[in-house]
Amino acid sequence: LSAPIYFTPGPSELYPTVGAHIQTALEAKIPAISHRGKTYQEFHGRAVSNLRELLGLPSDWSVLFLSSANEIWERALQNTVGHKSAHLVNGSFSKKCFSFASDLGLQTQKLTKPEGESFRASDILLESDVEALFVTHNETSTGASMPVDEIHALRKQFSGLIFVDAVSSLPYPSFDFSKIDSVYFSVQKCFGLPAGLGVWLVNNRVKDRQLILKEKGKSTGTYHRLDELLAQAEKNMTPETPNVLNIFLLSKVTEDLLNKGIGQIRRETEEKASALYVLCAEENGYLRPFVKDSLFRSATTIVAETSISPSEINKQLASLGMAVGSGYGNFKDNHIRIANFPAHSPLQMEQLIDALKKINR
Amino acid sequence: LSAPIYFTPGPSELYPTVGAHIQTALEAKIPAISHRGKTYQEFHGRAVSNLRELLGLPSDWSVLFLSSANEIWERALQNTVGHKSAHLVNGSFSKKCFSFASDLGLQTQKLTKPEGESFRASDILLESDVEALFVTHNETSTGASMPVDEIHALRKQFSGLIFVDAVSSLPYPSFDFSKIDSVYFSVQKCFGLPAGLGVWLVNNRVKDRQLILKEKGKSTGTYHRLDELLAQAEKNMTPETPNVLNIFLLSKVTEDLLNKGIGQIRRETEEKASALYVLCAEENGYLRPFVKDSLFRSATTIVAETSISPSEINKQLASLGMAVGSGYGNFKDNHIRIANFPAHSPLQMEQLIDALKKINR
Repeated sequence: LSAPIYFTPGPSELYPTVGAHIQTALEAKIPAISHRGKTYQEFHGRAVSNLRELLGLPSDWSVLFLSSANEIWERALQNTVGHKSAHLVNGSFSKKCFSFASDLGLQTQKLTKPEGESFRASDILLESDVEALFVTHNETSTGASMPVDEIHALRKQFSGLIFVDAVSSLPYPSFDFSKIDSVYFSVQKCFGLPAGLGVWLVNNRVKDRQLILKEKGKSTGTYHRLDELLAQAEKNMTPETPNVLNIFLLSKVTEDLLNKGIGQIRRETEEKASALYVLCAEENGYLRPFVKDSLFRSATTIVAETSISPSEINKQLASLGMAVGSGYGNFKDNHIRIANFPAHSPLQMEQLIDALKKINR
Repeated sequence: LSAPIYFTPGPSELYPTVGAHIQTALEAKIPAISHRGKTYQEFHGRAVSNLRELLGLPSDWSVLFLSSANEIWERALQNTVGHKSAHLVNGSFSKKCFSFASDLGLQTQKLTKPEGESFRASDILLESDVEALFVTHNETSTGASMPVDEIHALRKQFSGLIFVDAVSSLPYPSFDFSKIDSVYFSVQKCFGLPAGLGVWLVNNRVKDRQLILKEKGKSTGTYHRLDELLAQAEKNMTPETPNVLNIFLLSKVTEDLLNKGIGQIRRETEEKASALYVLCAEENGYLRPFVKDSLFRSATTIVAETSISPSEINKQLASLGMAVGSGYGNFKDNHIRIANFPAHSPLQMEQLIDALKKINR
């Protein structure tokens, strides 16, 4: 039996061009070249400029390569918060980021919503000494998404730094970068790449904040201190020997995404998501959307309550060469999670929906 | 012109089987599988057990996967030093590790040797409040190596933790693991893999030390806190989504190295190194060993002073399909650095030596 098409929410199906790009990399011996040489700098720079174009990122924002979104949570807190951070917590991943702040000895304000819900700007009242707010655009564990407009509206209520976790949604959401200070994502989600690379976007307010804390004598880290990351990024390099192969692959896949067009990617994402939510709304079906308020339903991670166990569903899907994700944590046995990433073509999604309709009970 | 054979000291030539292992990984869709599933746990576990066998690692040591040796410097300091670390500094990389301790707000004792030299145990007198000593087995920037016996002898002089940087030498050195507390390496050096993975080996003294510091209220990090890394390693997993593809490749290449045999790998390393040092000793030659005391000459990174510029040498080597490293930092224009890793076969090394003999002045 050959490997299935993975509709799992990360790691997930590779973008269809990745295999060919890996061949190109091996032929050019990309993994053997120096990360201090011109060839490296060239594709590092291309990955950055492609991302700028794809996301509409202003020129005064910087694009930084780290190892994972977990690392970015830690570096963001370490580099910009001297005293207190606030966290919107509505699932396992937003909760983990919150726990990092305590691990680092920071004071925290925690605002919570039940799993399967998300936040409106009007829900949020921050304590006066909060320096940075951590918002999760898309909770990968529950499929609850905070609408981009609600995220943008936070700017009027809060003058501190706004960090947005778009780990499993970018490049789908269209952010107004004047309303937020930082966004980050992992390449193994919507960019369809092997895991092992996190991408951190920061504006000048974030950069200034780190310098102020450093001047005050706070330790803001070592090789991945923000000023050190930025100094190397200026040269299209990283402080350490990075995941060179993945940065090369990112330069290639972002080119493919640009050729497809961000408009087309967003349209297809919405059409595939709609079809999945229609499936969940079928009267005699065994699936129900876990996120009850349609305002909060994710376009990239569709989570459904299921009366048939995820393992039984995957057993039947396996014979058709497909796999979906099981529920996260406590929901392991009564949710399925379906990744709706650019790597999943409209045709593949149609085939998955057909297969899910025909699951024997 | 096809890509040359890279004798550069990291990233370097891939181990010859890596291309085929990447094909296997792509066919099995390894980059798309969950890092919380059985398939992942199985090859993570195999990478660990293969490393144990290859290095003769005692069963009570743990094998941890991080992102780079830079990260391991930071985590080692953060997790085990409350007050003061000591550093043997004799080149750019040992100096960078030393600078991390200051960045983290620690007090330090710095012992130095000029570049191109290394340390004997008898050179080292540590202040009484030093908690951990950072030793570099192989200074990749200069080709100076501290003999393994001298490292082992430190145990009699110092009761604190001994960390050994073997980034560009393992699996060549044969350590007595009862005489040291931790060793670490990067996979893009002697393991011939793409960059983006650092491997950290720790004994129980290191683990206990972190727990004591944590109990005292010191922040020892977040997702890569030692106790968190260890809890996940117990399950053959990592706290974050790791570089899954590279861990798969490590499980495969360690198998190839075991099949070759560690004895054979060490013998070949020594024979190739001897031939390179013979070349450097030629009376009418343009190369001279940078490390004058043969006791300190590295077997895995041969650094030579050159009266012909590295760029001219590489220009002539390029037409023969080979490349060596230029000097590091200030030595950029008057040293060459030659990686002598398991990926470089005896025949390839012979061809390099022939080519270097024939360089036109």
